[in-house]
Amino acid sequence: MQIDSAQLETFAAIIDEGSFDAAARRLSVTPSAVSQRIKALESRLGQVLVQRGKPTRCTEAGEAVLRLARQVSLLEVEAIAAVKGKVEGLRLPIAVNADSLNGWFLPALLAVPPELVTAFDLRQEDQDHSAELLRDGTVLAAVTADPRPVQGCKVRSLGRMRYLSIASPEYAERWLAGRPLAEALAVAPMMVFNPKDRLQHRLVRKVTRRRLDPPVHSIPAPGPFVRAIRLGLGWGMIEEEFVEADLAAGRLVEVAKGKYVDVPLYWQHWKLDSPVLETLTEAVLQAARAGLHSP
Amino acid sequence: MQIDSAQLETFAAIIDEGSFDAAARRLSVTPSAVSQRIKALESRLGQVLVQRGKPTRCTEAGEAVLRLARQVSLLEVEAIAAVKGKVEGLRLPIAVNADSLNGWFLPALLAVPPELVTAFDLRQEDQDHSAELLRDGTVLAAVTADPRPVQGCKVRSLGRMRYLSIASPEYAERWLAGRPLAEALAVAPMMVFNPKDRLQHRLVRKVTRRRLDPPVHSIPAPGPFVRAIRLGLGWGMIEEEFVEADLAAGRLVEVAKGKYVDVPLYWQHWKLDSPVLETLTEAVLQAARAGLHSP
Repeated sequence: MQIDSAQLETFAAIIDEGSFDAAARRLSVTPSAVSQRIKALESRLGQVLVQRGKPTRCTEAGEAVLRLARQVSLLEVEAIAAVKGKVEGLRLPIAVNADSLNGWFLPALLAVPPELVTAFDLRQEDQDHSAELLRDGTVLAAVTADPRPVQGCKVRSLGRMRYLSIASPEYAERWLAGRPLAEALAVAPMMVFNPKDRLQHRLVRKVTRRRLDPPVHSIPAPGPFVRAIRLGLGWGMIEEEFVEADLAAGRLVEVAKGKYVDVPLYWQHWKLDSPVLETLTEAVLQAARAGLHSP
Repeated sequence: MQIDSAQLETFAAIIDEGSFDAAARRLSVTPSAVSQRIKALESRLGQVLVQRGKPTRCTEAGEAVLRLARQVSLLEVEAIAAVKGKVEGLRLPIAVNADSLNGWFLPALLAVPPELVTAFDLRQEDQDHSAELLRDGTVLAAVTADPRPVQGCKVRSLGRMRYLSIASPEYAERWLAGRPLAEALAVAPMMVFNPKDRLQHRLVRKVTRRRLDPPVHSIPAPGPFVRAIRLGLGWGMIEEEFVEADLAAGRLVEVAKGKYVDVPLYWQHWKLDSPVLETLTEAVLQAARAGLHSP
């Protein structure tokens, strides 16, 4: 091997644990052994890999090495599982955007047999942060709205989430009834997921051809976001599958009837010859076919 | 006034916007005016308040000043509203822990009349981060599991959230039936919200008097967490009110019947003579009385 595997493991432990001392405890070696291994790895590669600080962080140069460490670790666990016929301690870290986690994604996890993976370690992240987590190897796959491949990753198109503009009947009666929509939407309270969420504004542009500046409530969790709309705090964009039954029954109404905004989603994962990653990718593609509009 | 209010506003704008240039744009002044105001404020107080960097950050010494800036801004908006009879542009930033946001908290927002507040700006944060956000004035109130008052804040006891140990009937049949609970829980997959979530481990200790090390799935969003348990991925602690109907109907079962873990919650808010803060506090206390066990 070009790079010493004990040095690689030590490097990942320092970043995961946040200090040389904690890494030493996890690896059951002395702090000075940790320090020596990292110095050896850094001089072997001619780059500083660890920002010494509290906590210790990975340098930009170290990112590729950190990812290598995590990839090697996954392949090792899988090789041992193949020999022993039983997987031990394989945690699969995956980043998923909030609406997918709240919607179509979960059944994919159930489709991965427990012989292949011990546990899932999900992170709910927006697309900007997901790319960073893929890059440094913190997660090995991600559902993201960003089609640009992270270096070393493969991108698959999953399909489109369709969002409708939704309000409660009482809210619609109070804020929207009896006047032109553009006029109503200029003053009717709008919900957003967080300040980066532009879905509602995109719908407003599509429908009114204007930029409007209504009061905006921010609720950064999909469940409470939907519930606040049901309670009548504001109108907002909700994924189609969550509201179909309530729309049919008249418990919710569309703000702009028949109008929608589609968000295409992608699955990014390390290019790695790993059985669990292949099985998971198959399961995710299947869950997406069942739960999303075709790409 | 002891401190120049334009300097104070400029300081808050630099931290909010992340750079001197962006602050200048927001305030419609030149970047050199921004720079002069901050230097004047820093020399007036004899402390560096802004860490120059990308983005600009508040120094530790600056935290008290940043909070002052936000408090003055709230009081100003409210005074203008009292004069004009109409509130304009008052956004109320509040931190709420995930389970409260998903549960009893939302009705409190509906109880604050729109004459008092333009919009709510909610953040879903765990208790460690909430204290920091209160300290630097990013939020003016928070629901937290931490009873220690942040300096300058008032703490009110809200009540206790009660969590039960829940699994799907199929999961219970496969993993728990026909053997002692301690033995079953040592191998049955457990769900956690994130690595800091110790609720499940506390229940295990309470019931088995042991520390066990089962496979642990991590799903950091309350809705998907509950859904994963329904789907049978693992067992986990769910708040009582979410499962009562399903337990009665046999769609879910208790892992350890009749056992629970209570988490006390607190409302921390700035000590400030603000009508909207008083009204919100009343509404939150009332929603807590309706949705939580008494303190």
